Amino acid sequence: MAFKIGLLGLGTVGAGTVQILQDPAQRHPLVQELAIYRVGVRSLDKPRTVTLPPEQLTTDLASIVTDPSVDIVVELIGGLEPARSLILKAIEHRKHVVTANKAVIARFGAEIYTAAAQAGVYVLLEAAVGGGIPVIEPLKQSLCANRIHSVTGIVNGTTNYILTRMKNEGGDFAQILADAQQLGYAEADPTADVDGFDAADKIAILASLAFGGRIKLEEVYCEGIRGVSATDIAYAEQLGFVIKLLAIAKRASQPTPDSLDHLQVRVHPTLVPKQHPLASVNDVYNAILIEGTPIGQVMFFGPGAGAGPTASAVVADILNIAAILKVERGCAVQPSGLPLLDPLLACSHQHYCTVAPISDVVTRFYARFLTKDFPGVIGKLGTCFGHHEVSLESVVQIDRRSDTAEIVVVTHDVKEGNFRRALEEICTYPAVEQIASTFRVL
Amino acid sequence: MAFKIGLLGLGTVGAGTVQILQDPAQRHPLVQELAIYRVGVRSLDKPRTVTLPPEQLTTDLASIVTDPSVDIVVELIGGLEPARSLILKAIEHRKHVVTANKAVIARFGAEIYTAAAQAGVYVLLEAAVGGGIPVIEPLKQSLCANRIHSVTGIVNGTTNYILTRMKNEGGDFAQILADAQQLGYAEADPTADVDGFDAADKIAILASLAFGGRIKLEEVYCEGIRGVSATDIAYAEQLGFVIKLLAIAKRASQPTPDSLDHLQVRVHPTLVPKQHPLASVNDVYNAILIEGTPIGQVMFFGPGAGAGPTASAVVADILNIAAILKVERGCAVQPSGLPLLDPLLACSHQHYCTVAPISDVVTRFYARFLTKDFPGVIGKLGTCFGHHEVSLESVVQIDRRSDTAEIVVVTHDVKEGNFRRALEEICTYPAVEQIASTFRVL
Repeated sequence: MAFKIGLLGLGTVGAGTVQILQDPAQRHPLVQELAIYRVGVRSLDKPRTVTLPPEQLTTDLASIVTDPSVDIVVELIGGLEPARSLILKAIEHRKHVVTANKAVIARFGAEIYTAAAQAGVYVLLEAAVGGGIPVIEPLKQSLCANRIHSVTGIVNGTTNYILTRMKNEGGDFAQILADAQQLGYAEADPTADVDGFDAADKIAILASLAFGGRIKLEEVYCEGIRGVSATDIAYAEQLGFVIKLLAIAKRASQPTPDSLDHLQVRVHPTLVPKQHPLASVNDVYNAILIEGTPIGQVMFFGPGAGAGPTASAVVADILNIAAILKVERGCAVQPSGLPLLDPLLACSHQHYCTVAPISDVVTRFYARFLTKDFPGVIGKLGTCFGHHEVSLESVVQIDRRSDTAEIVVVTHDVKEGNFRRALEEICTYPAVEQIASTFRVL
Repeated sequence: MAFKIGLLGLGTVGAGTVQILQDPAQRHPLVQELAIYRVGVRSLDKPRTVTLPPEQLTTDLASIVTDPSVDIVVELIGGLEPARSLILKAIEHRKHVVTANKAVIARFGAEIYTAAAQAGVYVLLEAAVGGGIPVIEPLKQSLCANRIHSVTGIVNGTTNYILTRMKNEGGDFAQILADAQQLGYAEADPTADVDGFDAADKIAILASLAFGGRIKLEEVYCEGIRGVSATDIAYAEQLGFVIKLLAIAKRASQPTPDSLDHLQVRVHPTLVPKQHPLASVNDVYNAILIEGTPIGQVMFFGPGAGAGPTASAVVADILNIAAILKVERGCAVQPSGLPLLDPLLACSHQHYCTVAPISDVVTRFYARFLTKDFPGVIGKLGTCFGHHEVSLESVVQIDRRSDTAEIVVVTHDVKEGNFRRALEEICTYPAVEQIASTFRVL
């Protein structure tokens, strides 16, 4: 009673998935019951790292998702189309779906999950966030008794690699990005990574699972790491912080009964205190810290990308579906109509979460100013912040070059809107030459 | 169609479990379908932190596990008996079981899981290892596609707290243990924690899940932290290590087809390189690092104990059973005879793993010798180790008091038996006053 897999895509993750399925020894015995049935590829002639019977390969991907024999469709072609259409067609034909495609789920999750609920099938996506790190399934199955307060993650390996090297080498962004591209750690077009869009897709997915509502991707605030300089990394270090690109989803700080669903969902470079568990997550590693009641803090750490780890997550999803199908098939008579889905694995929420605008976020800030070395400049900054209800934790005049002073300010928790209004006013001061950088502080 | 819970024990974890079930808002909607049906306690009159209808409470625990209305029995009384008998009786009456009882599972797991397989019920135990940290379910469900090589954990909060304070304060074991007992971080009888027995129970359970075979608890090598001194912690620090009580389960280093199931399962204080992910897990926190193919390394970090975190794990297990029961109940006709169990959640292995004796373990060692300050002592030590095929990574003469020298040796990977034979010979040298300590090095 094997489960027949229709695989779309035979790139690195697809090949990694085939390797696991072809070599079940010492894995869970259920792996032996998974059969690769058909594999959709772009070209039949391309040399492959895995060997498959030629009759299993096809360039007609639509024929796989409509094949009555296929139980589970595994979508590993990436990109928005034809991935979205193939997933929807698979669902329409009552196939369960496993995907690693964060971009499709973050944009078309509502459409896909509505269709899946109607068809009575699962759409699992462990591989879409954190590569091989188990985080989606633990959120759904292991932390389901908790009231989640926040999800804070380093979910993009490329930017974490660049920031780690900038910190270790004191190098600047552009130069290390170029090197990372040469070494294959960053894409030729690095936009999705360095501008935070990949992390935004992932935190939208995590937020949706953690808080049980849909998220509009366009409401996720997103700021990449192009503005992070070696200077700021060095100052952060002196102040006891490391700079990380964090993806954060949390409930509004002081929820009222009306604002229970009010979330902050945001991606931006962040000063992280050195003793924080996320501060020591370096290189291409990912980690996701989840806080809730009554669990407190738990963190999941591991490889955020790569063929092997991602394939591990893909096959785990396939196995989880196969396990449920076994329970169903064990029923003496098959369900009439649609089977009831496992409520922890299926996605049932249909409303949208309200995401607060970034100006409403309450957080600490770091800001670096270049000023003329006039007496009283620090006093003027302090007074201006005070007018806008921004209270300061520390003000340090760190450097002095000829007649220019460099002033670094760290605030207490303030409303972002107030902080920005203070900066607008400070910009107009003749003594202030430049607001060189501002970052949020965890 | 609520699921009826029979709760055995209303101590801190029991009360934490009730609190979650009584307050389902913002948790998974399935929590609303869980009903506390009966609660077994030792005394009806004891003041409680939770309020339950008096008719739900009983001192007759056996009546709960045999009650035809109860779907899921949650065993939180701890200890070996009557916990074991109640679990077995619950299984006999076709109840699914959730337990936090590592001692019972590590000792009577074979008996309990054999009975559960025969009765067609689940016995889940997420709370038994790592408190609230999801680790058992991820091992079963998220990492099931992997070939696991090793599980390495800090799984006892009390000893990690003591070792962290010894390191930070430079204090000695006895004094900090006494303080930890006063503060409630260590029990009046600290044996189970400080002698490693609690960690041994936990690694036996993890090894069984990771390697798909049963483990005989008496084959788990177990050494506690009483022999760790402030001196060794300080020397370890100088050499780039921290000392942690690690619980380790791994496949034999060079498996042959015959030795695939040959495992090492051991608990002992270990020198951990400072840059290792486990080195920065401090205080009462727990962390479990799992290595496998193709995942690489993943680590799970969080609170290893406490009422809230443990209750989070207990309710997660209840929800996972309830979710599967929903799938079954969704079948138009109920299964005749026994339902098929979810093969990822159920425990199906019946053979025993072969655990290698500690003398066969290959590892690095740290040893500290007190010697007379004779010329040539280091040479004699080196020669002796060489005779026994123990190659040395470093030899440092760290301290010199009057005519006594202190020599610290770190070996390369060696077979433990060879290392011990070398020490036996070294003991006989007149120049060697004492082998002050030996620890394994990760």
